[in-house]
Amino acid sequence: MSRVIEFSSTGGPEVLEFKDIEVPLPGPGEVRIRVKALGLNRAESMWRTGEYIEEVKLPARLGYEAAGLIDAVGPDVTRFAVGDAVNTVPAFSQNQYGMYGEQVLAPASAVVKHPPTLSFEEAASIWMMFVTVYGAFIEAAKLQADDVVLIPAASSSVGLAAIQLVNMVGAMPVALTRTSAKRQQLLDAGAAAVIVTDEQDLVAEVMRLTHGAGARVVFDPVGGPSLGKLIKAMKTGGILLAYGALSDEPAQFSYLDLLIKLPTIVGYTIWNTSGDPVRQKAAVEFITAGLASGALKPVIDKTFGFDEIVEAHRYLEANNQFGKIVVSV
Amino acid sequence: MSRVIEFSSTGGPEVLEFKDIEVPLPGPGEVRIRVKALGLNRAESMWRTGEYIEEVKLPARLGYEAAGLIDAVGPDVTRFAVGDAVNTVPAFSQNQYGMYGEQVLAPASAVVKHPPTLSFEEAASIWMMFVTVYGAFIEAAKLQADDVVLIPAASSSVGLAAIQLVNMVGAMPVALTRTSAKRQQLLDAGAAAVIVTDEQDLVAEVMRLTHGAGARVVFDPVGGPSLGKLIKAMKTGGILLAYGALSDEPAQFSYLDLLIKLPTIVGYTIWNTSGDPVRQKAAVEFITAGLASGALKPVIDKTFGFDEIVEAHRYLEANNQFGKIVVSV
Repeated sequence: MSRVIEFSSTGGPEVLEFKDIEVPLPGPGEVRIRVKALGLNRAESMWRTGEYIEEVKLPARLGYEAAGLIDAVGPDVTRFAVGDAVNTVPAFSQNQYGMYGEQVLAPASAVVKHPPTLSFEEAASIWMMFVTVYGAFIEAAKLQADDVVLIPAASSSVGLAAIQLVNMVGAMPVALTRTSAKRQQLLDAGAAAVIVTDEQDLVAEVMRLTHGAGARVVFDPVGGPSLGKLIKAMKTGGILLAYGALSDEPAQFSYLDLLIKLPTIVGYTIWNTSGDPVRQKAAVEFITAGLASGALKPVIDKTFGFDEIVEAHRYLEANNQFGKIVVSV
Repeated sequence: MSRVIEFSSTGGPEVLEFKDIEVPLPGPGEVRIRVKALGLNRAESMWRTGEYIEEVKLPARLGYEAAGLIDAVGPDVTRFAVGDAVNTVPAFSQNQYGMYGEQVLAPASAVVKHPPTLSFEEAASIWMMFVTVYGAFIEAAKLQADDVVLIPAASSSVGLAAIQLVNMVGAMPVALTRTSAKRQQLLDAGAAAVIVTDEQDLVAEVMRLTHGAGARVVFDPVGGPSLGKLIKAMKTGGILLAYGALSDEPAQFSYLDLLIKLPTIVGYTIWNTSGDPVRQKAAVEFITAGLASGALKPVIDKTFGFDEIVEAHRYLEANNQFGKIVVSV
């Protein structure tokens, strides 16, 4: 028997329930994992409230990121063997698989070898954030060493991963944060500059930092009324990657600025990268090299126990973390 | 002596003034044109009010599109000879050249041969609109025969040119118009369908027309609060080209829709196409072939006399035209 987490109606963290189930043997293309740690993502909290980009089918499981040990492999799976330490990469629908459990099935196409230098908690924290920023910066934005990158909501796990990856390429990460509370932490995390958006003039600051040129790349999970300022702070012909929608208000901007700045604005998700075997492999190799060199490292804010999953989701949504929230199983 | 039009302060149509000047002989890279007809563009009215994407230096000239006869060529210009019938293509700054005049200088890089089957009035009306839609659909959107294209403000000259070019490629042009007044005219102009946005549910209509798929391409000069509906009406992974900013209100949309629809939103102007000799040549060849086959044709709403230039600008801004406004000189 395995304890897994389910919810039978969408809502707040309290809808998450423990359930004892018999996890079957893996079918073709699947492995079964004895989970040691989970990484928590905003995607899962949106999934739980029914506000995710994919429609949730109830009763539902959840969870994208697990680290643990293979305890059974499907009939045609040759890449993994029982006892292997592995991690899952977000490359499946939560309507089909959910990693929140002591023992779970996972599609082998979403399973990668566990980086040997990391603990299970660390390994459960890295793939969503690093594959997301790899796809955004290396694939989509084709980041170059002379680029300046604006990173709103920089204290999130993906924001911190962005700072690391931008530094790894030799480009300039500019962290945006609402209040000055996390300013020093962001500098310590590698931000070349921090703009406190409640206190500073974003556009003027970016223009000062870039000697009037503006930032070629913006990596924004917020939207809302401040989108217009981000566009004004861009270099002509730059790219804005929207990868989240944290603001409750509609995104707003001056259409004329599109004709002046000629930006490309794209919706970006991890799926095109993680869901394509060739691109996922390239991402995993890039990230593994970055972890080995020390350019990329986990940033764990807080670790919860498996019994504390409701509390962990509450903490996730309070939005005060600096980095990743993980759960030890 | 030549009568030309100038303005020494930005403002309404009444700031346009006639002036008698001696137009010098063309310098290197220039030709001098005896103008027979002018095409009017919204870009010139924004230029006149000081709201254009380029800052106006006063006193200023204006005008992008002229048709006429070469009456002198610069010392190094070999492509044209005195007496040649020619047209100008928007490929220069109005701070450097302005076509509103009886006799004007123009950069040879912006001059093309006059299509022999067209009158001067017709020829003065075609290049802004057709080069704009060529660059947007052929170059940027890489339009295919199975594409559906949404065309807001479809009764403008560029909107009508878009309908023609989309039909030429074999794709499906869907015209958007605010009231039903121009519905039949748009169908007669080649629209496969017309959506009256003040009366119909835009998203539902597009989904009905496309069997739930949405439109891959949107070509929008409006922005404003209706941007969000355009994005909702798109096919996943489509492209929205913003080429104007007619709405006075900020552009608004749901950021979450970017993650669902994964569109590419780009600011589009004619300049990358018209300003590059190789791309301009390809555009002119494409358009010339379209004119010859009858797939592309001028759509002139009204012709004014040169003395009526202030009235012509007033008419342009009243926004009731169906097609192009031209001026006989």
